[in-house]
Amino acid sequence: MNDAFTPTPDDRFTFGLWTVGNRGRDPFGFETRPALDPVDAVRRLADLGAYGVNFHDDDLVPFGSSPTEREAIVKRFREALDRTGLKVPMATTNLFSHPVFKEGAFTANDPGVRRYAVAKTLDGIDLGCELGARVFVMWGGREGAEAEAAKDTRSALDRYAEAVNLCCSYVRDRGYDLRFAIEPKPNEPRGDLLLPTVGHALAFINELEWPEMVGLNPEFAHETMSGLSFSQAVAQTLWHGKLFHVDLNAQRIGKFDQDLRFGSEGIRDAFYLVKLLEDASWDGMRHFDAHAYRTEDADGVWDFARGCMRTYLILRDKVRRFHADREIHEALAAAQADRLRETTSPGGLGADAIDSLRATAAGTDLAALAGQGYGHERLDQLVTELLLGAR
Amino acid sequence: MNDAFTPTPDDRFTFGLWTVGNRGRDPFGFETRPALDPVDAVRRLADLGAYGVNFHDDDLVPFGSSPTEREAIVKRFREALDRTGLKVPMATTNLFSHPVFKEGAFTANDPGVRRYAVAKTLDGIDLGCELGARVFVMWGGREGAEAEAAKDTRSALDRYAEAVNLCCSYVRDRGYDLRFAIEPKPNEPRGDLLLPTVGHALAFINELEWPEMVGLNPEFAHETMSGLSFSQAVAQTLWHGKLFHVDLNAQRIGKFDQDLRFGSEGIRDAFYLVKLLEDASWDGMRHFDAHAYRTEDADGVWDFARGCMRTYLILRDKVRRFHADREIHEALAAAQADRLRETTSPGGLGADAIDSLRATAAGTDLAALAGQGYGHERLDQLVTELLLGAR
Amino acid sequence: MNDAFTPTPDDRFTFGLWTVGNRGRDPFGFETRPALDPVDAVRRLADLGAYGVNFHDDDLVPFGSSPTEREAIVKRFREALDRTGLKVPMATTNLFSHPVFKEGAFTANDPGVRRYAVAKTLDGIDLGCELGARVFVMWGGREGAEAEAAKDTRSALDRYAEAVNLCCSYVRDRGYDLRFAIEPKPNEPRGDLLLPTVGHALAFINELEWPEMVGLNPEFAHETMSGLSFSQAVAQTLWHGKLFHVDLNAQRIGKFDQDLRFGSEGIRDAFYLVKLLEDASWDGMRHFDAHAYRTEDADGVWDFARGCMRTYLILRDKVRRFHADREIHEALAAAQADRLRETTSPGGLGADAIDSLRATAAGTDLAALAGQGYGHERLDQLVTELLLGAR
Amino acid sequence: MNDAFTPTPDDRFTFGLWTVGNRGRDPFGFETRPALDPVDAVRRLADLGAYGVNFHDDDLVPFGSSPTEREAIVKRFREALDRTGLKVPMATTNLFSHPVFKEGAFTANDPGVRRYAVAKTLDGIDLGCELGARVFVMWGGREGAEAEAAKDTRSALDRYAEAVNLCCSYVRDRGYDLRFAIEPKPNEPRGDLLLPTVGHALAFINELEWPEMVGLNPEFAHETMSGLSFSQAVAQTLWHGKLFHVDLNAQRIGKFDQDLRFGSEGIRDAFYLVKLLEDASWDGMRHFDAHAYRTEDADGVWDFARGCMRTYLILRDKVRRFHADREIHEALAAAQADRLRETTSPGGLGADAIDSLRATAAGTDLAALAGQGYGHERLDQLVTELLLGAR
Repeated sequence: MNDAFTPTPDDRFTFGLWTVGNRGRDPFGFETRPALDPVDAVRRLADLGAYGVNFHDDDLVPFGSSPTEREAIVKRFREALDRTGLKVPMATTNLFSHPVFKEGAFTANDPGVRRYAVAKTLDGIDLGCELGARVFVMWGGREGAEAEAAKDTRSALDRYAEAVNLCCSYVRDRGYDLRFAIEPKPNEPRGDLLLPTVGHALAFINELEWPEMVGLNPEFAHETMSGLSFSQAVAQTLWHGKLFHVDLNAQRIGKFDQDLRFGSEGIRDAFYLVKLLEDASWDGMRHFDAHAYRTEDADGVWDFARGCMRTYLILRDKVRRFHADREIHEALAAAQADRLRETTSPGGLGADAIDSLRATAAGTDLAALAGQGYGHERLDQLVTELLLGAR
Repeated sequence: MNDAFTPTPDDRFTFGLWTVGNRGRDPFGFETRPALDPVDAVRRLADLGAYGVNFHDDDLVPFGSSPTEREAIVKRFREALDRTGLKVPMATTNLFSHPVFKEGAFTANDPGVRRYAVAKTLDGIDLGCELGARVFVMWGGREGAEAEAAKDTRSALDRYAEAVNLCCSYVRDRGYDLRFAIEPKPNEPRGDLLLPTVGHALAFINELEWPEMVGLNPEFAHETMSGLSFSQAVAQTLWHGKLFHVDLNAQRIGKFDQDLRFGSEGIRDAFYLVKLLEDASWDGMRHFDAHAYRTEDADGVWDFARGCMRTYLILRDKVRRFHADREIHEALAAAQADRLRETTSPGGLGADAIDSLRATAAGTDLAALAGQGYGHERLDQLVTELLLGAR
Repeated sequence: MNDAFTPTPDDRFTFGLWTVGNRGRDPFGFETRPALDPVDAVRRLADLGAYGVNFHDDDLVPFGSSPTEREAIVKRFREALDRTGLKVPMATTNLFSHPVFKEGAFTANDPGVRRYAVAKTLDGIDLGCELGARVFVMWGGREGAEAEAAKDTRSALDRYAEAVNLCCSYVRDRGYDLRFAIEPKPNEPRGDLLLPTVGHALAFINELEWPEMVGLNPEFAHETMSGLSFSQAVAQTLWHGKLFHVDLNAQRIGKFDQDLRFGSEGIRDAFYLVKLLEDASWDGMRHFDAHAYRTEDADGVWDFARGCMRTYLILRDKVRRFHADREIHEALAAAQADRLRETTSPGGLGADAIDSLRATAAGTDLAALAGQGYGHERLDQLVTELLLGAR
Repeated sequence: MNDAFTPTPDDRFTFGLWTVGNRGRDPFGFETRPALDPVDAVRRLADLGAYGVNFHDDDLVPFGSSPTEREAIVKRFREALDRTGLKVPMATTNLFSHPVFKEGAFTANDPGVRRYAVAKTLDGIDLGCELGARVFVMWGGREGAEAEAAKDTRSALDRYAEAVNLCCSYVRDRGYDLRFAIEPKPNEPRGDLLLPTVGHALAFINELEWPEMVGLNPEFAHETMSGLSFSQAVAQTLWHGKLFHVDLNAQRIGKFDQDLRFGSEGIRDAFYLVKLLEDASWDGMRHFDAHAYRTEDADGVWDFARGCMRTYLILRDKVRRFHADREIHEALAAAQADRLRETTSPGGLGADAIDSLRATAAGTDLAALAGQGYGHERLDQLVTELLLGAR
């Protein structure tokens, strides 16, 4: 179907090789789909109107490939990119599949594992930069614990910071134009992961050697697993100037990591996320980190990819309608939404300003303020009807 | 019962007036216990061996009291403190009960509400300092949203920061010896609260005018509501040097805010928290922010208070046993727990050091590293048996 | 706004007196709205197009009213019903607010409390029947435990069954035309409630003396609190022939009981629920057990009530569109949705039929079956676009 | 260590081949442990003092084995059982790993898949009975949905019941001494599973052709995933006479299926479960459905197995202490725990008895009943200290 919701590269949609290439294996079942050649992924994604494709080192260059094999793979992949115009805006390292990382990677107790993890990441950085990546994602899927006694959190954070610093140092030495984006997740595969939410990762960055080089890659599913508001999390990330990348998908609260098609659950949350990104004129990639249901064959994979992008575009159109809707404007005014931009203390933080604020407050008509209604039911219903296409 | 687990003021246990004074009201039921005179609370807590008592402004001085009434109340309360030796280490403001705060306090859309909230907090600071408080807790129970369209998160964070800055400025002007401790919570009473976890609040502090004056008051129940590890959260707080206060209680994941007796749920989590605080020689207050079940009469309230402290002391004793246990030491060695303190890059962050790390990593015996066991089942079982008193 | 989504009594929408009468109190805040006269509630609901109004005994006749007062109240209320044509399809008893129920009602340990609870329920049945109720809801808000040692679950279920049997016996003796509907809930206000889900209550009914008199009142928010699928729960209830009533609202998983406006969260879940009720031609009441946000004044309450009904009607219209959509039909066929109605064993349960089934299965072309795609991504995307009004 | 907590076969502990044989694969990582020969599993479990070993068909006889291979495998396995005295109390079928089941097994839309699933189950029943199994577990890991439109729940329940009926019919025809135990689970690997909790499965059984042949296999982790109380769930199962098997492990609420070592999380929940089983003198198997952390090598697997059994025995000892503890008895009396066994209506369900109950209730001293305390804080603290070994 070619309509207003058909994507083009200008929409800056990207997918991971591991997303369209997901073979449907899960903890209780074997693969249901054949492997997908990365070059075919590139071709199909380009056909669908995507802007780019991202990868883990091992997605593109199988673990254990020789330098010659690596070269041949990269050459063939680059040709596919050149042919289609698809970009590689982001790359990352797989520090979670190999058994060597079973106790951690950057924060493994064994220094040998940590060194190997850092070195593998540096190789991944080289590979990403070779193919044009500007963002390097760090997801610490094995950085965590089940047997809490075995892992000292504070030392683990020291080592986590050290590893990130090493990567930053390397990028600076090499002169790469690359920034890092940490991807928080609360649990799975480990019982409790370090940097479990957007907040923890934002705080962590402040202790790094080059904090300006490091931001976040918040993922819809990961924040939602903990029951936190994803759009609020991304808003705080933007507030800190740290939204370097974003992972779009869908998820139900309190469940295993589902990585569902964007918008297939949490329509309202998806809308507010799109609204936030669009209102902020955020210029990063709209990356889908999701995969097709295990019930799907190869065709279903492309239905999945198409659906992610269409839903984003439909929601983006609703953002436009939101701003053009007179009744919604009235309701926002009734809710005094704009007044939140007014400072609380018009005179600033000085002693006089505070005295003045206190004097003003002394005259507060409490009954009047307490009695006013904010019209949130009306406003929220208008948004609901907008989402449902009933206005 | 007077035994090894009978508390003394040296243990630095504190309770809020609102905790032992909780009257058993809940969203579906009326009060089951009579009001408790703060002076009686002071006497009973002192008898039980507590160190101190904390309060919200309105807990001590009922909302709407005249200056004369306030003075009389404070005088009588101070006499009770003097008589018993009980301290007031912490104070806070109630910015959530009065209807005026229904849409927020520091982040209300209406600037009049915000000004009133800040002024009430300044009054609360005066009251707290008058009675000796050194920590002022800020829990933003109404800072959040249900109808997301009505609240711009980024502006709300601006106003939140402004309010905290105003309070810091005031404390500096007055020369008070007082630090602030932000208390995160994910939801309830609002659908989604701002600064929902320890991580979000830690990040927020970095944007303040005087970040050194502001730290955290993590609460066991609040982090647990989101399914996050509380001891890991507190460990990260310590890592940032921001543990200014702590709220101890118990909670089951994914439920309403239960505020149960410390240790009554999550024994293992409680142990690791106590272990962290004791191992870090943290010198702050062990504050219990919990209340007796609604089934209890007045006697049950003191059983509750006694139980909180006893369980802490029992767990503290287990920390001592943990460190003295030879088998646990062996298991920690097998898990290579201590090696996490070794740097990953012995030579630091420079280009040569990184080259050297890479060279070392190139020689990694992957099969050997991947094949080694960490003995976590044994270690964790030893801790379980320690907790169960079976070793 | 008068449009296709303006309700009429034919739509069978009902509200509780406690829903539109909710005053905005919550565990951390006082009431924000004045009390609503039940007679005003009747008038306003009738104006909005509702079919009926439901109540707890204490909602209509304040606890402790004398017989004379009761009579006057009922008379005045009945006049309002007569005037407006509004019906009372359901009634229930409040067995949770008064402190006497703090340890349970039907399952309190103290037999005196249990007797009082049963007697109060019988009075409530009289009141309900007097005003025309045909369904009597039983929500056991205090039947549960925090201190598990104090409550023997099996004895509690004995007593629960006894209490329901007593009520059934009473209804039979009185010749009332009344059925009971048990309302499950997992927790809040108790730590763990008995009959925590639709499933537990369905099973329980089978042990009653007159199981045919007792069915369920599933509530959207309550099943959702546990992360269970509400429409699946209601489908199983229908499968057992036990859907006697339904409580519509909205809720996020793993949070306190929010009782939000229907459809304001979980749009997709709400759609599938409406689809199920409409496809089954279920003839019961569409009851809204929700309340306005605490931010709302009196006007907001009616925005809330209007919104609940409008969203139901919009979703009902989408059900119609779903069935009329050719592409959705194609996708359903690809998913083999209709084939689930075919029996697995065409010959039934006998030995020959089973031999035959086994023989057939022996010839299964596993590779072909395993390889087929079900087109769920396409189907689900079509539903998503239907919900978004994009088809 | 040989002490009071060293298991013997009299303790009736069993493990699945898939538990000690778990190879540490997870959704993000490859296997970390080599395959375990079932015969070695038998020998090691016998050495550790287990009573029996259970299996899925494919655990013992690899999928696709020829009849001759099957025979050889079974012979060799039986010899190991005979040599060690280990029993096979339970067997089950794997209806979830092969891609053919990706859309369901007993409730797949495609009748061919359903027939194959039933036939595979009948083969599994033959295999189980051949090795002495008396309980056959049914876990419907693929019976569920993500794309809700594709699966009609009511038809699915029809087909589910049909499949169970077919299995029962087969067992009756063959004269096997075998009962079925349904294992509920809320989600994972499907988004929403049918029969998600103990309650739903208990209700379902009532609609079967031979309900007396079918009971439950509740699993600690599965109920806990939804935040429900496992001991309350098992108590209701016992109340219905349907506890045919039990799966012991550990889990945190709201997370992926963790299958942790019994007692390693939720110590208090584990205690109440053991207390329930022991107080009920339940004579079934204590089956551990868990696996070692992925960090473990082969030795860690046996530490894991040993730990499960030891913790059960330690908790069983605490149950004995609970009953012997004078203070706990006093607290139970204060909580009126025993009085829950008294009927509410001493005269039964008749009209006179109800009149009499009402008359008694009319004289209730509400203030006295409402004012009494139940001493739950004291009781719960005594249990906590019992668990901690402090009494």
